[in-house]
Amino acid sequence: MNLFKEEEIRKYVAVNEKAIEIVEEGFMALANGKVTLPPIMRIDIPENNGEIDVKTAYIKGLDTFAIKISSGFFNNSSLGLPSLSGMMILFNTTTGKTESILLDNGYLTDVRTAAAGAVSAKYLAKDNIQHVGVIGTGTQARYQIEALSKVREFDTIHIFGRNEEAAKKYAVEMEAKLGKKVIIAKSPEQVVKESEIVVTTTPSTTPLIQAEWLHPGLHITAIGSDAEHKQELDEKIFSQVDMIVCDVKSQVFRLGELHHAKKQNIIQDDSTIIELGEITAGFKKGRENDGQITVCDLTGTGVQDTVIARFAYEQLHTKIKEFQL
Amino acid sequence: MNLFKEEEIRKYVAVNEKAIEIVEEGFMALANGKVTLPPIMRIDIPENNGEIDVKTAYIKGLDTFAIKISSGFFNNSSLGLPSLSGMMILFNTTTGKTESILLDNGYLTDVRTAAAGAVSAKYLAKDNIQHVGVIGTGTQARYQIEALSKVREFDTIHIFGRNEEAAKKYAVEMEAKLGKKVIIAKSPEQVVKESEIVVTTTPSTTPLIQAEWLHPGLHITAIGSDAEHKQELDEKIFSQVDMIVCDVKSQVFRLGELHHAKKQNIIQDDSTIIELGEITAGFKKGRENDGQITVCDLTGTGVQDTVIARFAYEQLHTKIKEFQL
Repeated sequence: MNLFKEEEIRKYVAVNEKAIEIVEEGFMALANGKVTLPPIMRIDIPENNGEIDVKTAYIKGLDTFAIKISSGFFNNSSLGLPSLSGMMILFNTTTGKTESILLDNGYLTDVRTAAAGAVSAKYLAKDNIQHVGVIGTGTQARYQIEALSKVREFDTIHIFGRNEEAAKKYAVEMEAKLGKKVIIAKSPEQVVKESEIVVTTTPSTTPLIQAEWLHPGLHITAIGSDAEHKQELDEKIFSQVDMIVCDVKSQVFRLGELHHAKKQNIIQDDSTIIELGEITAGFKKGRENDGQITVCDLTGTGVQDTVIARFAYEQLHTKIKEFQL
Repeated sequence: MNLFKEEEIRKYVAVNEKAIEIVEEGFMALANGKVTLPPIMRIDIPENNGEIDVKTAYIKGLDTFAIKISSGFFNNSSLGLPSLSGMMILFNTTTGKTESILLDNGYLTDVRTAAAGAVSAKYLAKDNIQHVGVIGTGTQARYQIEALSKVREFDTIHIFGRNEEAAKKYAVEMEAKLGKKVIIAKSPEQVVKESEIVVTTTPSTTPLIQAEWLHPGLHITAIGSDAEHKQELDEKIFSQVDMIVCDVKSQVFRLGELHHAKKQNIIQDDSTIIELGEITAGFKKGRENDGQITVCDLTGTGVQDTVIARFAYEQLHTKIKEFQL
């Protein structure tokens, strides 16, 4: 059994083409019916503004699978501690033996979430774009755009964040990192109107993007909502777009943006909703022309966790000296 | 963050009065409505005869809680490996930080399961007994009787196991360990008829104990069934006893002996069933006279895992040199 720390994991796993490829394969396995995906286990500790989630997925035929435990404790900043922590544990599917504990503190989740956003844009965004937009100024706002840059060429990033300082810091960092122009927008509306792809990355509990702002050719990826009370998109958006895609139907109707659309009777049934894996596996088509408006609701699935944990372990196992217990 | 290995944990945690006391307190907390107890998460890997369970419980007000991951892979013996493995992970309830990883390989589950059996007997068995019986010859057959010896004085153990050699080995070991007489029975029927307390500890999928064998004063604790297909007790037993007790109603009606009783319409509703915590908390009475027949259906709960993990960590933390990551 090997145990790896965050700094080691960060050294050998990045938001790159390979990470996007394996996450895409994970979605394909899901669409091919090869995945056992139990519902998320969640422990809420409301008195400390905290929650711990457990996610897992077994992909038939693979020699390992992961269980991920991730915690978010949102009073931690007042204690000078990061809000997120956690780990992924890799188990052997023949013997049940623990192969590895990856103490990543949420880093691998960041990578697999960004990779899913890139897979969504790969199949749903227009082929040729110049402007991408992002709402939020945190870690995912960075990784999502970095991942996007692996599947589309673009030259300008439009960012909106409530905290102006954070937006400025984002602009400086991302201009240096990606060599692209970053424009700080005055409102989410400005971001949407200027952009051909928009990624929402906030923990908002009220809609940030309104249906009136949609325009032909737009693709939106919403990654913020992963709990009942979170919402980034006006639910009317779902009645006005040409394609609605999600990661896992059963999950988005419980925890994602679509949860609100269903509650408001905007989506009556899920038969018109497409799972991302159905597109990556070739069962359904992605974007068909440059005029369509598309939206992808991502809540994060155990399949992504299993594939990224397996990938990280392969990288680490072969590249660094083992820490034998 | 501290990481402890099985051999260290075994050194400092035993089936003793303290372990029984803290498990009893866990059941009380449950009855007092202080526990958040999410449903068990389960991943089946049928092609390898394996399953992995995740259990957890948060007890309000305590500074840590545990998530337990336990695996059972029942082809492992053919590979020369133990069937069970796994760990308990202790999290800080204020920050979500991982406090400790206890690589116990199921040992702490054995301890807390035995402790629950003892709590059940403490409140449900007659005060004065001489003969206890056990079905099965494995680890729990040992720990259950060891735990029983902390709450009742008895002088004879009746054991039945399908494997005669294993039963003989059990007899030699337990006579030496507890200083009590061990009689190898020819049948489960003989065990039940000779005993005042019977503990069933097998993974049987067909009833081992028949309703016709019940007699006044008998208490049965059934610990084997923790999955839909397992069953140790003839479901008719539940129509013939004076008290039916369980650990958690929602769980036993899904996974325990009572699952079969409900399916056969022997138990129509759960209003007459008592949860063990309701007795330990003083809300309901245990055994009231020496003539009653009582049965306790235990499936194992996350509460027991949280209290035993906390207990183990306290013991280890104070007693051995820390292994700092």
